[in-house]
Amino acid sequence: MAAAAQLFRGATRAACGSPAVALALAAAAGRRALGSAPPGLSAGRGCRRAALAAAGALGGLGLGLWRRQQAATAASEEKDEDEKEEEELRQRFMAPPVSGLRELRRRRRELRSRMELLIMETQGEVCRALAALDPGASFSVDTWERKEGGGGISCVLQDGEVFEKAGVNVSVVFGLLSEEAARQMRSRGKSLKAKDGKLPFCAMGVSSVIHPKNPHVPTMHFNYRYFEIEEADGTKQWWFGGGTDLTPTYLNEDDAVHFHKTLKEACDKHDLKLYPKYKKWCDDYFYIKHRGERRGIGGIFFDDVDSPSKEEVFQFVKSCAKAVVPCYIPIVKRHCHDSFTPEEKLWQQLRRGRYVEFNLVYDRGTKFGLLTPGSRIESILMSLPLTARWEYMHTPPESSKEAEILEVLRNPKDWVH
Amino acid sequence: MAAAAQLFRGATRAACGSPAVALALAAAAGRRALGSAPPGLSAGRGCRRAALAAAGALGGLGLGLWRRQQAATAASEEKDEDEKEEEELRQRFMAPPVSGLRELRRRRRELRSRMELLIMETQGEVCRALAALDPGASFSVDTWERKEGGGGISCVLQDGEVFEKAGVNVSVVFGLLSEEAARQMRSRGKSLKAKDGKLPFCAMGVSSVIHPKNPHVPTMHFNYRYFEIEEADGTKQWWFGGGTDLTPTYLNEDDAVHFHKTLKEACDKHDLKLYPKYKKWCDDYFYIKHRGERRGIGGIFFDDVDSPSKEEVFQFVKSCAKAVVPCYIPIVKRHCHDSFTPEEKLWQQLRRGRYVEFNLVYDRGTKFGLLTPGSRIESILMSLPLTARWEYMHTPPESSKEAEILEVLRNPKDWVH
Repeated sequence: MAAAAQLFRGATRAACGSPAVALALAAAAGRRALGSAPPGLSAGRGCRRAALAAAGALGGLGLGLWRRQQAATAASEEKDEDEKEEEELRQRFMAPPVSGLRELRRRRRELRSRMELLIMETQGEVCRALAALDPGASFSVDTWERKEGGGGISCVLQDGEVFEKAGVNVSVVFGLLSEEAARQMRSRGKSLKAKDGKLPFCAMGVSSVIHPKNPHVPTMHFNYRYFEIEEADGTKQWWFGGGTDLTPTYLNEDDAVHFHKTLKEACDKHDLKLYPKYKKWCDDYFYIKHRGERRGIGGIFFDDVDSPSKEEVFQFVKSCAKAVVPCYIPIVKRHCHDSFTPEEKLWQQLRRGRYVEFNLVYDRGTKFGLLTPGSRIESILMSLPLTARWEYMHTPPESSKEAEILEVLRNPKDWVH
Repeated sequence: MAAAAQLFRGATRAACGSPAVALALAAAAGRRALGSAPPGLSAGRGCRRAALAAAGALGGLGLGLWRRQQAATAASEEKDEDEKEEEELRQRFMAPPVSGLRELRRRRRELRSRMELLIMETQGEVCRALAALDPGASFSVDTWERKEGGGGISCVLQDGEVFEKAGVNVSVVFGLLSEEAARQMRSRGKSLKAKDGKLPFCAMGVSSVIHPKNPHVPTMHFNYRYFEIEEADGTKQWWFGGGTDLTPTYLNEDDAVHFHKTLKEACDKHDLKLYPKYKKWCDDYFYIKHRGERRGIGGIFFDDVDSPSKEEVFQFVKSCAKAVVPCYIPIVKRHCHDSFTPEEKLWQQLRRGRYVEFNLVYDRGTKFGLLTPGSRIESILMSLPLTARWEYMHTPPESSKEAEILEVLRNPKDWVH
């Protein structure tokens, strides 16, 4: 459900609750046997969990078990070029894709397949990059299935040397939207004509939150998602959503500029209007209203994007997904050995409390995921930090480093022009 | 806002959001000068904050400053019997009541005044009892005002020897319900006829959450509240709500029986049907749906109670409020010096995480308080623990003490018959 739920981070401009509810309802994840497996789903699939030593994972991501299973069925098949290509893809993924590698390659021209390959690659890339920085820690890899169709892969590194908690989720869910879900969709302004009150849909995405230990290394979140829905007459509605944003405990202007500049470059390749528009959307979305603060120093955020064309939006989303590692990893490398005081750690813990407040009170994907029976709760709440703190009436002294970041959270700045 | 918002813990049987929204909207707290002070409000009032050494507070609750202010204005007045009585009340309160002591005594026959005196006394009683157990710690006392009418008193003891965070709030707010708020009220089934779209209202309550340090001492919460609303023809609708409930980290059956038995005795004095009814309501209300667990081992919870008569319900609420100290303090005394392991502390922190989840995701008072502009956020979020923890996929071993409490949280038990 994780990524599934987080697929549904909604737009501030959308009517309250609509897409999130629809999707969360649709994406309720079963944890039992796969009821309606899509063609090509590997036979051995099913809530398997493997603790991968991050160091070992760097080579082939520790998927020995899976490879052996594959090898047994593949023994009788001819080793051809296709298989070599498949093998290369496997090396880059954390687990077998939900739709099956063979099926994805067979339907390789369809955008759904290309998006699923992209989110799988992004998950692999980010996990490898994180694991390389935290060699003593281990990633757990959980695959889970949704009774009604689809499933996901949750990768979590917890209590490492560098990372307090790092989660990267993929989910690919499909099935039928209920009438209620469809109604919710409609209330957002999407006109959807259902057949017998049901709408076939497919939703997929990659979603991640990285909480480092050192208070001088910021928390990072990203999420890229794609949605398809089929109307009664066979026409398909589709849209993309996503974003990448940074939540520092202390302000470092160089980091802020690097982060935003990297995102701007990814956007500018497609349209110069995108970065300013999505930067503002991000500041608006990650707003902790009751505190009058943003969750962090922003980045980009967009939802419900269906123009200029499916291909162009996909290429834009691909650029954003490819920018995650260059946005963030240099910042982690720069600060993960910085010294820090107990007071700085305490301030980090208070900021973690604010992160929890945003995610549980405002984040639409989290909220509606939690309220959906059958959701994979552990994947949804993977976004919460390992530890957090709430002090009554805590106010940092004027002109302190703590007051400096608060000022930026209260009044977002433009970091690149 | 604190107690104000927490006044509005709603009923599971009520329509979603209705009373909470109405009240939270109505009770937005101003933090500036008192715009419409009720008669009798002491002149020196205004967001004053006094850190009271708990030890010192045991005598006269450290209200020297306030007494001196009062003394200056009282110098020219005759010391009569009334003043002696007032002085006695002052000794028992943490700060001057929102409506002013003289005014409360003048209107002493009105239920509003009796309820305000009861919540003030309850706040004083509980704070004194807690302070006596944690002599090295200090209570901060904040008085705050609501621009539109009323205010509150927030008492917080933080990071003591025995208590991690203990808050006891009083709020008394009044003014006009907006049309939106009135609409929300109506959707709950209350038929309210407004004059010019506005309904005069008064809401008051005492609300508290106590998080101890030792994992063998449970967290306790209580809240007692009264609501009055005047219709166009001058008739008044009124109702009470409240409850007391316990959240242990580990199950201790003796404690559970003592807690429930004390509550049952308080209920049984009024009607034998009350305890079983409100015990079940409590189990239903404090349900963390996405976890399939209750927040704790329950107690009593009720809302929207307006029969058999105002006097009888008030007497019942009074019995419940008077039962708080005998319910809880013996349990704290019994366990506050128990030894504990780092693993037990860790389990406590994970349970604290669940407490945060309930309060931010489900608790109606908290949710709507947070979404209301102008709320006193610090008082609302005083209910959150000092520290909390979230681990991915944490599952206690079978037959462990951790599994034992989980079983009870998943399947509530009857503790007294």
